[in-house]
Amino acid sequence: MYHIDMQKVKDIVSGILSGHTIENVAFVGCGASKSELYPGKYFLANASRKLRVAHYTASEFNTDTPDWLGETTVVITASLSGSTPETVQANSVAKAAGATVVAVTHIDGSELTKEADYSVIHGFEANYAAKLEKMGYVMALALEILQQTEGYDRYESMLAAFDKIFELAEKSAQSARKDARKFAARYADAPVIYVMSSGASTEVAYSTSICLLLEMQWINSGSFHSGEFFHGPFEIVEKDVPFILLMNEGKTRSVDARALTFLQRFDALTTVVDAKDYGLSGIAGDVATYFNPLMHTAVFRVYAEELSYIRQHPLTKRRYMWKLEY
Amino acid sequence: MYHIDMQKVKDIVSGILSGHTIENVAFVGCGASKSELYPGKYFLANASRKLRVAHYTASEFNTDTPDWLGETTVVITASLSGSTPETVQANSVAKAAGATVVAVTHIDGSELTKEADYSVIHGFEANYAAKLEKMGYVMALALEILQQTEGYDRYESMLAAFDKIFELAEKSAQSARKDARKFAARYADAPVIYVMSSGASTEVAYSTSICLLLEMQWINSGSFHSGEFFHGPFEIVEKDVPFILLMNEGKTRSVDARALTFLQRFDALTTVVDAKDYGLSGIAGDVATYFNPLMHTAVFRVYAEELSYIRQHPLTKRRYMWKLEY
Repeated sequence: MYHIDMQKVKDIVSGILSGHTIENVAFVGCGASKSELYPGKYFLANASRKLRVAHYTASEFNTDTPDWLGETTVVITASLSGSTPETVQANSVAKAAGATVVAVTHIDGSELTKEADYSVIHGFEANYAAKLEKMGYVMALALEILQQTEGYDRYESMLAAFDKIFELAEKSAQSARKDARKFAARYADAPVIYVMSSGASTEVAYSTSICLLLEMQWINSGSFHSGEFFHGPFEIVEKDVPFILLMNEGKTRSVDARALTFLQRFDALTTVVDAKDYGLSGIAGDVATYFNPLMHTAVFRVYAEELSYIRQHPLTKRRYMWKLEY
Repeated sequence: MYHIDMQKVKDIVSGILSGHTIENVAFVGCGASKSELYPGKYFLANASRKLRVAHYTASEFNTDTPDWLGETTVVITASLSGSTPETVQANSVAKAAGATVVAVTHIDGSELTKEADYSVIHGFEANYAAKLEKMGYVMALALEILQQTEGYDRYESMLAAFDKIFELAEKSAQSARKDARKFAARYADAPVIYVMSSGASTEVAYSTSICLLLEMQWINSGSFHSGEFFHGPFEIVEKDVPFILLMNEGKTRSVDARALTFLQRFDALTTVVDAKDYGLSGIAGDVATYFNPLMHTAVFRVYAEELSYIRQHPLTKRRYMWKLEY
């Protein structure tokens, strides 16, 4: 229930390597899926000593296609529905250049799987952990590509963390309801909400802002890296200006902590979702840094749910999506 | 007056290559400087077939330093004052790992130049074109690294564009005053302003949001890629919601155009700064895509000035920066 199929991931990567050398890995998606590709990209770009790693919103990949796209490139695309037009088109762009495509989607047989060389079908509805499978599979693909091409000295640590992270994230989300209700009550009428994080969770802050707040709650929002906060955004801080900080356990914790100190000093309305509070380092040790996004995503989903309840604005409510052509 | 010193850039790169192989190029800065590194990063990541290219806010580079940082890495750091503590520290992190550091700053002899192997001193005050020198030198460094390592088939086109872009950008900025005043009058009381762009200008939208609006005008703001607009942010659009679109000439123009069509359809309060209106393709031809950031930065500076005048809120006004320790 709480595991991704690591053997499937291993087989995909060994299958690719039986016919191709891998020199480039491109992660391509849109919106929430783009942000869910980021932890895999972040890990691989940081840990690999040889691979070239890139991350695109699909429309950019399609229109300003990189000069190096070709047979030594693996393109990992992701779309929950498997029907996002730009991402489906990215598969075609990749295939036309001779690249290998791995599609990660919730819907077996969807458009995204049609031109893909390999498909990974992930869960979503079952529980909070299932909502992490897309992100988890992309991280696992990145890990296996690294291990099977150049090797990775913390490979076993990564596998051990994968074994436990989904159950811990589910448990953490389940335990967050009370704090989430407090958050919702305090932020229900916020005219704008800023979201920050750092490291592998940088794009969890981004998707929290553009998807959960702008798209699903129609609340004004912006997001930025906690380290960038001091180079512009912090001038917007005054008493009661609303901020959410997704605080990391691991390498960039000091960056988040510095931003938190500033928010508290000037009495901003501050909510912290701290991966440390949920015991991340206990299960992920020296690779905890890379697993923050799974914890933040699971726990903040509960916060978003509670915000939607108190505002009587369902997370599925839309003005435009599903309603018209654009 | 309107040129950067290309010979100096060539000499720096040939100097590096006389002692080192270049396999990795990392662009490291904070805030506006981080965004001004992006066009060079964007060009090199797209056009190089061999180099590994990365872009960091300095605090992340310092705390979660990539595993591959070493003797085959060139780190390009940038800071206007040359005193940004995180960026100065990034020089130390890079040097400790054996990397070569090129510092790009306005202040000769500043902290940023102390540990650097090479320094580039750029203009700023003289005019709008001078404010582009930091970005231009970083792009020129990227171009020379590419040309001197693996060669680049549009090298001459790039040099020709560099020859003319600064004068065109200055002229464009000078001609934008009237439109900028109209913009300022319409946006003076905006409760929030969203900023979008794509391609090489993606981080011009970002710095417009976090520096010009949040930092220098204390106006609520968020920014995102024009292609990401349809995957979340567009649900915030209603009549009169304020948007700025920095429209690109070149590869990603269709992505920007699609966002514009949507904004107009739903009567958002929309301002477009279009590089095409200022004749970018006339001087940059098939490499126009890469020069959009210089045009957008120059022209929008005038818009920001006019906004500051009508709001009687100088661009230099701060709550925290220069006033306290943080």
